[in-house]
Amino acid sequence: MTDLPDIAALAAPCGVLIEGGAKAGAGHLYALRVFYEDTDLSGVAYHANYLKWFERARSDLVRLLGIDQRAAVEAGEGAYAVAEMHIRYAAPARLDDELVIHTLPEDIGAASVRLVQRAFRREGQQPPVLLAQAQVRVGFVAPDGRPRRQPAAWRAAFASFGHKAATPNPTETP
Amino acid sequence: MTDLPDIAALAAPCGVLIEGGAKAGAGHLYALRVFYEDTDLSGVAYHANYLKWFERARSDLVRLLGIDQRAAVEAGEGAYAVAEMHIRYAAPARLDDELVIHTLPEDIGAASVRLVQRAFRREGQQPPVLLAQAQVRVGFVAPDGRPRRQPAAWRAAFASFGHKAATPNPTETP
Amino acid sequence: MTDLPDIAALAAPCGVLIEGGAKAGAGHLYALRVFYEDTDLSGVAYHANYLKWFERARSDLVRLLGIDQRAAVEAGEGAYAVAEMHIRYAAPARLDDELVIHTLPEDIGAASVRLVQRAFRREGQQPPVLLAQAQVRVGFVAPDGRPRRQPAAWRAAFASFGHKAATPNPTETP
Amino acid sequence: MTDLPDIAALAAPCGVLIEGGAKAGAGHLYALRVFYEDTDLSGVAYHANYLKWFERARSDLVRLLGIDQRAAVEAGEGAYAVAEMHIRYAAPARLDDELVIHTLPEDIGAASVRLVQRAFRREGQQPPVLLAQAQVRVGFVAPDGRPRRQPAAWRAAFASFGHKAATPNPTETP
Repeated sequence: MTDLPDIAALAAPCGVLIEGGAKAGAGHLYALRVFYEDTDLSGVAYHANYLKWFERARSDLVRLLGIDQRAAVEAGEGAYAVAEMHIRYAAPARLDDELVIHTLPEDIGAASVRLVQRAFRREGQQPPVLLAQAQVRVGFVAPDGRPRRQPAAWRAAFASFGHKAATPNPTETP
Repeated sequence: MTDLPDIAALAAPCGVLIEGGAKAGAGHLYALRVFYEDTDLSGVAYHANYLKWFERARSDLVRLLGIDQRAAVEAGEGAYAVAEMHIRYAAPARLDDELVIHTLPEDIGAASVRLVQRAFRREGQQPPVLLAQAQVRVGFVAPDGRPRRQPAAWRAAFASFGHKAATPNPTETP
Repeated sequence: MTDLPDIAALAAPCGVLIEGGAKAGAGHLYALRVFYEDTDLSGVAYHANYLKWFERARSDLVRLLGIDQRAAVEAGEGAYAVAEMHIRYAAPARLDDELVIHTLPEDIGAASVRLVQRAFRREGQQPPVLLAQAQVRVGFVAPDGRPRRQPAAWRAAFASFGHKAATPNPTETP
Repeated sequence: MTDLPDIAALAAPCGVLIEGGAKAGAGHLYALRVFYEDTDLSGVAYHANYLKWFERARSDLVRLLGIDQRAAVEAGEGAYAVAEMHIRYAAPARLDDELVIHTLPEDIGAASVRLVQRAFRREGQQPPVLLAQAQVRVGFVAPDGRPRRQPAAWRAAFASFGHKAATPNPTETP
């Protein structure tokens, strides 16, 4: 897991979002609300739903990069599939909570992408509270399930995004 | 099922929303995107997910009315539960589609609420396409599962919302 | 909705099943348990999950009829899709409850099938308790989403199953 | 991750199960089928569903140990919650596949339990195929979300189960 991002800085862009996603510095923020469908008998969000939320955030990021996942599947080229995930749950989410998923691409390989994803709860003017964090490795797979090199354009789009992560003074987050 | 709403008029408020919900005339609009988790092997959204989307829309509407469902559950007062739903599917939703759920309260009873809900797909400047429509009856139930009169304040909030439905010239949609 | 089946008679075959499905007279029984994933904040099973359970039961019935849904999708022939469902919820299901889904095909058309499905809770030697009942219409659709005549072999398999429904003295339920 | 279990030996007990779970040596086996609800657009099971399947298996194991999770939640004592999961996906699951979840408790602490869980696909007389494996840490938490020592009886039940894991020649798997 990389160093913690500037949590206080996260609060500002979060305050602007209602739901949906947007680029934020070298990463991506995706906002959502916790609904009845997400909760379970114990009163908090069911643990498997974080994987759905992380996937929504990655899909939103990928869409912002200009990648059309549906066209790739329908053309028989392939799809991203999660290869490995290490997730740690820190605090529960409850009905009506406003969450923000922060996604940071870390490594863009020929056939896979590694990212760090975190779920935070927004609480008015308070700093966001970390609920869960995960290291995720996503691979590109052919329709028959075998690993395949991801399209060059996809890798380039991700690399451009990832490049900003290595920039010491990115212009969009002065 | 009531008469069809002014589909063309729906296009305008939809164009403003990204995700999340808002009041719209006598009804409510809730926008969402179709993600991987929503699709199935056949390439379209799994039919049970429309019930989740309709519930998100109702919860958003209820929240806008100032009703705190979580507090009511945690206080042991009760919760809304779907008592009956008649849903007809008209066209499929696919990955990345932008949907809008239109919710129209029709009758506010002592212990239940009847609504009409419809899912539309937004397609740029085109009129929305109807994907599914449902008549829904939601009852208020005690923690032991038995029907119970809903809180007076909730009924009043809904009635105020429903009253607008009967107003021929609502001031907020001139 | 057709007349109620012999609820007491249901208890016997249910007592044999643990999980999974089997033919039972003119209909089909599918047993399952309620897990954490199925519950929500209010302590009972989330209403949309009944549609999943009904679909599991239909898929099990279809599989017992020798119909290979996956092969049909992969060959681009088409798939069954729910066209309409009218569901009434009678009582809640809770964590660890043992449920039985009873499915009764009612009408086998050229492009669609109508069924009645009910969810019961098993309680030891007690008669099953009705939790929900639904009238369901399922259509066969091409990969582009348009209705299509279902494969003749599928219709024949269903018709043979449905035929038993009309038999006054079926040998397997004397 | 511990050493691989005797995969060939797994085939035998799997052959007996239809659906549902059972003790198997020092571990536990839970069988299930992949349904439409589990698949996504790419034609295989959605990755988050493995967490649901692993939870079903743990709940079945816990139920066999005589632990009543629902009573503990309803009494306000607390519930098990996943604290950490490291999952690696090896091969996809497809519609109608018969899966077996193998669960092996590894460490029983005062407030948490560590387990190794694996999903296999059964293919007739063939040895099972590994689809995914996970190291899971589950903690007992109070209704307010804070960690709490698990009930002594629960720990004892798990310890008795775990003890068998350390036995060199368990009588039930000669």
